[in-house]
Amino acid sequence: MTSQFFGRSEPVAYAGEQSRDPLAFRWYDKDREIAGKRMEDHCRFAVCYWHSFTWPGGDPFGGETFNRPWMHGDDPMALTKQKADVAFEMFRLLDVPFFTFHDVDVAPEGSSLREFNDNLKAITDIFAQKMESAKVRLLWGTANLFSNRRFMAGAATNPDPDVFAFSCGQVKAALDATHRLGGANYVCWGGREGYETLLNTDMKRELDQMGRFYSMLVDYKHKIGFEGPILIEPKPKEPTKHQYDFDAAAVFAFLQKYDLLGEVKLNIEQNHAILAGHSFDHEIRYAYANDLFGSIDVNRGDDLLGWDTDQFAMNPSEMALMFHEMLQHGGFSTGGLNFDAKIRRQSIAPDDLLIAHVASMDACSRGLLAADRMLKDGALTEPLQNRYAGWDAGEGKAILAGERSFEEVASRALDLDPQPVSGRQEMLEGILNRYV
Amino acid sequence: MTSQFFGRSEPVAYAGEQSRDPLAFRWYDKDREIAGKRMEDHCRFAVCYWHSFTWPGGDPFGGETFNRPWMHGDDPMALTKQKADVAFEMFRLLDVPFFTFHDVDVAPEGSSLREFNDNLKAITDIFAQKMESAKVRLLWGTANLFSNRRFMAGAATNPDPDVFAFSCGQVKAALDATHRLGGANYVCWGGREGYETLLNTDMKRELDQMGRFYSMLVDYKHKIGFEGPILIEPKPKEPTKHQYDFDAAAVFAFLQKYDLLGEVKLNIEQNHAILAGHSFDHEIRYAYANDLFGSIDVNRGDDLLGWDTDQFAMNPSEMALMFHEMLQHGGFSTGGLNFDAKIRRQSIAPDDLLIAHVASMDACSRGLLAADRMLKDGALTEPLQNRYAGWDAGEGKAILAGERSFEEVASRALDLDPQPVSGRQEMLEGILNRYV
Amino acid sequence: MTSQFFGRSEPVAYAGEQSRDPLAFRWYDKDREIAGKRMEDHCRFAVCYWHSFTWPGGDPFGGETFNRPWMHGDDPMALTKQKADVAFEMFRLLDVPFFTFHDVDVAPEGSSLREFNDNLKAITDIFAQKMESAKVRLLWGTANLFSNRRFMAGAATNPDPDVFAFSCGQVKAALDATHRLGGANYVCWGGREGYETLLNTDMKRELDQMGRFYSMLVDYKHKIGFEGPILIEPKPKEPTKHQYDFDAAAVFAFLQKYDLLGEVKLNIEQNHAILAGHSFDHEIRYAYANDLFGSIDVNRGDDLLGWDTDQFAMNPSEMALMFHEMLQHGGFSTGGLNFDAKIRRQSIAPDDLLIAHVASMDACSRGLLAADRMLKDGALTEPLQNRYAGWDAGEGKAILAGERSFEEVASRALDLDPQPVSGRQEMLEGILNRYV
Amino acid sequence: MTSQFFGRSEPVAYAGEQSRDPLAFRWYDKDREIAGKRMEDHCRFAVCYWHSFTWPGGDPFGGETFNRPWMHGDDPMALTKQKADVAFEMFRLLDVPFFTFHDVDVAPEGSSLREFNDNLKAITDIFAQKMESAKVRLLWGTANLFSNRRFMAGAATNPDPDVFAFSCGQVKAALDATHRLGGANYVCWGGREGYETLLNTDMKRELDQMGRFYSMLVDYKHKIGFEGPILIEPKPKEPTKHQYDFDAAAVFAFLQKYDLLGEVKLNIEQNHAILAGHSFDHEIRYAYANDLFGSIDVNRGDDLLGWDTDQFAMNPSEMALMFHEMLQHGGFSTGGLNFDAKIRRQSIAPDDLLIAHVASMDACSRGLLAADRMLKDGALTEPLQNRYAGWDAGEGKAILAGERSFEEVASRALDLDPQPVSGRQEMLEGILNRYV
Repeated sequence: MTSQFFGRSEPVAYAGEQSRDPLAFRWYDKDREIAGKRMEDHCRFAVCYWHSFTWPGGDPFGGETFNRPWMHGDDPMALTKQKADVAFEMFRLLDVPFFTFHDVDVAPEGSSLREFNDNLKAITDIFAQKMESAKVRLLWGTANLFSNRRFMAGAATNPDPDVFAFSCGQVKAALDATHRLGGANYVCWGGREGYETLLNTDMKRELDQMGRFYSMLVDYKHKIGFEGPILIEPKPKEPTKHQYDFDAAAVFAFLQKYDLLGEVKLNIEQNHAILAGHSFDHEIRYAYANDLFGSIDVNRGDDLLGWDTDQFAMNPSEMALMFHEMLQHGGFSTGGLNFDAKIRRQSIAPDDLLIAHVASMDACSRGLLAADRMLKDGALTEPLQNRYAGWDAGEGKAILAGERSFEEVASRALDLDPQPVSGRQEMLEGILNRYV
Repeated sequence: MTSQFFGRSEPVAYAGEQSRDPLAFRWYDKDREIAGKRMEDHCRFAVCYWHSFTWPGGDPFGGETFNRPWMHGDDPMALTKQKADVAFEMFRLLDVPFFTFHDVDVAPEGSSLREFNDNLKAITDIFAQKMESAKVRLLWGTANLFSNRRFMAGAATNPDPDVFAFSCGQVKAALDATHRLGGANYVCWGGREGYETLLNTDMKRELDQMGRFYSMLVDYKHKIGFEGPILIEPKPKEPTKHQYDFDAAAVFAFLQKYDLLGEVKLNIEQNHAILAGHSFDHEIRYAYANDLFGSIDVNRGDDLLGWDTDQFAMNPSEMALMFHEMLQHGGFSTGGLNFDAKIRRQSIAPDDLLIAHVASMDACSRGLLAADRMLKDGALTEPLQNRYAGWDAGEGKAILAGERSFEEVASRALDLDPQPVSGRQEMLEGILNRYV
Repeated sequence: MTSQFFGRSEPVAYAGEQSRDPLAFRWYDKDREIAGKRMEDHCRFAVCYWHSFTWPGGDPFGGETFNRPWMHGDDPMALTKQKADVAFEMFRLLDVPFFTFHDVDVAPEGSSLREFNDNLKAITDIFAQKMESAKVRLLWGTANLFSNRRFMAGAATNPDPDVFAFSCGQVKAALDATHRLGGANYVCWGGREGYETLLNTDMKRELDQMGRFYSMLVDYKHKIGFEGPILIEPKPKEPTKHQYDFDAAAVFAFLQKYDLLGEVKLNIEQNHAILAGHSFDHEIRYAYANDLFGSIDVNRGDDLLGWDTDQFAMNPSEMALMFHEMLQHGGFSTGGLNFDAKIRRQSIAPDDLLIAHVASMDACSRGLLAADRMLKDGALTEPLQNRYAGWDAGEGKAILAGERSFEEVASRALDLDPQPVSGRQEMLEGILNRYV
Repeated sequence: MTSQFFGRSEPVAYAGEQSRDPLAFRWYDKDREIAGKRMEDHCRFAVCYWHSFTWPGGDPFGGETFNRPWMHGDDPMALTKQKADVAFEMFRLLDVPFFTFHDVDVAPEGSSLREFNDNLKAITDIFAQKMESAKVRLLWGTANLFSNRRFMAGAATNPDPDVFAFSCGQVKAALDATHRLGGANYVCWGGREGYETLLNTDMKRELDQMGRFYSMLVDYKHKIGFEGPILIEPKPKEPTKHQYDFDAAAVFAFLQKYDLLGEVKLNIEQNHAILAGHSFDHEIRYAYANDLFGSIDVNRGDDLLGWDTDQFAMNPSEMALMFHEMLQHGGFSTGGLNFDAKIRRQSIAPDDLLIAHVASMDACSRGLLAADRMLKDGALTEPLQNRYAGWDAGEGKAILAGERSFEEVASRALDLDPQPVSGRQEMLEGILNRYV
């Protein structure tokens, strides 16, 4: 019945570049081997619950547009199950290996935390059962600590310690559920861990609270034997004026200060990166440079808009640079490409959900194929190696090894007249265009 | 002769709020005591050499507008001295306690580093002599590692180790000069420590180079007995697409990673803050929260423009929030308010230089007076204290002290239903308006 | 009963600058005469229905925070009346001369346009009755053509002509209601008159549709004898990616093309101005320069955020520049200062609604007082007059009068060497600071 | 001699998609016929003088990097000729059909307007001679009314009428030169026609001055028989805080007000479009929708930076949308694709100039090929046609034809319940990806 929502029962299949069917893959050929792994194992695509099954299509100036059948009814748990049926049907149709969810996406909140936790356990059982017969696994779970009005002034960073406690209660249940479902990671997005105005905010205190929260969470994770990493998802603003997890660098500073390195890593999102004034590629590189890389929320912001549009990633060039970086580091370990992306609120036909995922999976795959070819040819990596060759030997190497003092180097410089060399930006951009 | 550039010989004086003279102070009354210190000792104003005496008035689409006499002539050292005469005359007329400079602002580069260093030593002698009979002292010195084409691809982060060496040579000379002149701090601005495109950039390598540079510099500082702090001035972009010292958080992450905490602090600029997507107040608070506060480059960016306009600070509200924060931490120690601000290129009358400084010194002073009154009344601080009172005792205190486990707190939360309390933003904004 | 919502029955009164009561005016002294008019008649404050009484406190990542009693219940018309009671009580407490509303703010939509129109008529009767015994009048009415899903692809610019028709039906009812209540203006905000992607948009066609819509509306306005102007409220984006009424200039271009000049004017909003990359002052000046000025939505955006925050205006300097411009043109005719501003979603105490309006009314009043003093002194106007004096006579005047050909002027220029004069920006900024 | 600057004498040739030579075309095959025209005649590529031959590589924080031989020497006219030799050599090597220049790019300013005009005439003769034996023609000429300090407060909008006169003198000479060289258009960029602060600006007056200027210029153009259009190039800001030619809409408003429609059209630039908050495609569509389309400055801004980076266009998708629009209107008439693009200041190798143009010509060509295929398939145009079909007949058509009154349409709407239809954004984005 619910399986008829999408009007088809055949999973989307690879049909080659010439296909004009919007419900066929033209580049994503899951079993094709690239750099020693199947494309599916490189991409590790995950469908997210919230945008695809929970969001009704509203925006700040307009209400529901989708009118999904599972959003209207009197019995919350029945609707929840109906939603789960459609979700798992979509996982099957797209043939994706992973999904992701917030606690509130899948379980009714009820009238108390106790009831919410019970609901979450009940739905976890249902998920566990569905997953037995399905291919799909859990990439990560997370708790929504931002929608309910109790979090309006923060979760861990709330001026009220009881809200901190409530956050612990909710995260514990979400992590327990994630663990029970074999989740590969657990994600925290601090959408309310920030401020609306500094006039009423004690920043230092709030950062200390947040540090404490993560320390306690990490202890708990070890206690229950959850082996995946905790991932923080940076975002600079929206909903609040300013969020503490502004970007990868802000999180890195925080993790070092509160001694959380190694325990907590990053879930990087394209749209959040550009809202912070960074390219997606920048945030990925920064994460690898500082051993913080965890997972990816793959989507696309609108460069001309100042809010999170969470559009489906459709830019093969950007995907190529992402994979170019990842392949150099062996690709994903526990992470994956989570589609934290929503169809536009005008895309109200049921198959728009499928079409959007298919088109974006193809764009990602095209990026993977291009990245692999570039790396095989050394198209970008060789010029880079050559550019910095001076640091691999001689004085450069000695300086980096700490074998030279400031005044020694300064003194040697008196006789130097270093000549600049072309940065070759346009040539490299042309090379990238050649591969994508 | 050069003292006639400004057409007056009397220093600008305090004349009271009713004065309509643009060359009189209406709020800055240097000897007036505020919170136990003279206004002059709170503000610690510094005039910068580069914008006021070295910049000819150009912008990316236009050339020189100021036509200063000391910018046109055949004998570099003679022009340099003429410039110094005008500068010290302006310090006297404004009666400011400090100035700041780059090496290239004050000394001709000559044809080699050796010659440049010699020129800098010569001008340092001249400065030392002038300072003997003048009131003005040196707030900080710095080296320009960004204008010369040899730095086009970075200074410490250059792919060529010889440019790294050259940077050491130049910084050593600038720090030596700063030390000789009794400078209170030494500043580094990494205007080229970033990239134009990631396609030709090895970010990890470059960050390691930069870490090495600062470690070596700190060692040298100790060796020569320079007691002031090294200050990094964050800026997110411009001239490059992306600078590593993006904001206070990025620098904090860097300092922790390369073990530079305590040795290196921050010089925070309003215009750089907003280019990074932060309010000025945010960056100041973040610095204090993480024990990184050093000094201030006081100026004002245009909120609607995407580049560094470096206008004179004319917003008393923003200055009030700045002092409100500083006064709670005892005010400046080694830092000061450096006018990293330039008159508009159309402000070509000689007295525009004076008028701009006077108007901005007044705006800062008004902020100081308002901040002092607010603190005395507890206008903002009392509501803040009350808002977080829950963390000062009971469970809140125990959690922060590490005396509660995640599951203990989570379990207690099952019976909680914390109720939100008004954040009172508009009331607090109204209060701020009442004082400024 | 509902009058007890605010917990007070005395209207807010003027108490002088020294008052520390957040529920007293410190600058707004309504009967004080300024430039020949009472302050109340200069400011023409209006409270808006939507933000203050209809918005539940949600944002894109969070739900209701306010929990207003009139938002929860089974009988829409009863809730509507309860809301109206509270609204009129607030108008009384703030002693404001005007209010504004959307059709959907005041009347339940029902299940058809026919029913909606009937509801609106019923509530209009209630309003008319309330207004008889109250001071408050209607500044303007408007129709909400953006929230319902039928408008997701536009109202007048919808690809479906039936939605265009529906828009006419809704606007007719709203204009009829506005007319019946003696509204001074009628406002149109084209929140969905734009696009999400150009890939599915026929821009030329949509602009023609919009031109037709306004021509028809203007005809109807004349037919029923509505004498106030139609006002378009420019906004560049949000909710859509791009709105056709991007800014004052885009609307001016549109009005000229579709022959609507003189019939349609502008309702200018601060937050919309800055989202379009303009200062508030710019949009006001542009409107006056092209005879388009109508009314003001007074609020304040956050310069660091890319969406409409609609905060209460708290910046006396900006208000001073607004009034400085308006007073030179005789002040408002039909327009007023409409508080299109919302308290923050954390400001959940009932009196936050009052406090916010009071603080902002004071900020506006301070601006008015400063503008009046500046104009009396010619503080900004005299320097301006002098700067352009060359155009008031001689060749300048002749050129502007069309009495010189290009080649005549060009030929005269061969012997000219015009010398630039200081623009005096910092001096003028200092002057502004002296008055505010 | 100067022809050896580039180190090659063979023009760059088409070598097919598989070529790895950065100095070969992989998509630009000039004689290949697309939609009835040769690729060369579609693209009408033009090389600009200023970025490629006049700009020394500086930025706001750094000086010259390129060290071109023709920029250093004592004899301005000799350097000018040397520069022209290199420029024409590059036109030949790239085999481009057009070039563009500012007066100051090609002729020394001398010490008076008279001398400047003479210099310009002399260089025009040289150009005319060179063009006889070369393939290259002049797409357009323009006058630089922004670099010299006399224009610091505007050209036509200057407070000093003598600067207005000087502007006429300079533009007359530039238009005469353009006419003599058979230029296809004449371009005006109002880089200083704006303001730094409204505090010293009389906007209405300045707009009137600008209106007068263009009216006079149009008269002159007709008088001398110049048949090409005058093109205004919109830009929102930089160098000034605000330019009157903010975007296509602002210029359209201006042209209507001052009765310049039909005489003046637009030269649209990608980087200027995004600085104004519009997509490139938006500005092109707006121009066509209002019969304003003239020519294109093809380049690419950095979406994360707030200034004009003028990078070479390397995005085939954006180029595809540009050509998709142009081909529907018959392609260029007098306009062309002018590379208002500069190599990065680190691209200091002589062949970087060639490589950048080649890579961008290829990106444009790829866009042309994709656009042509999409149009042949109706890939985007058919869905668009269908979406608006309701307006082509029946009530929709009648409304647009002015055959329905507001109240007629409103009355019919009482019985309507229009149902929204999917906007299909993701499907269309997937289709675009299929072609590019």
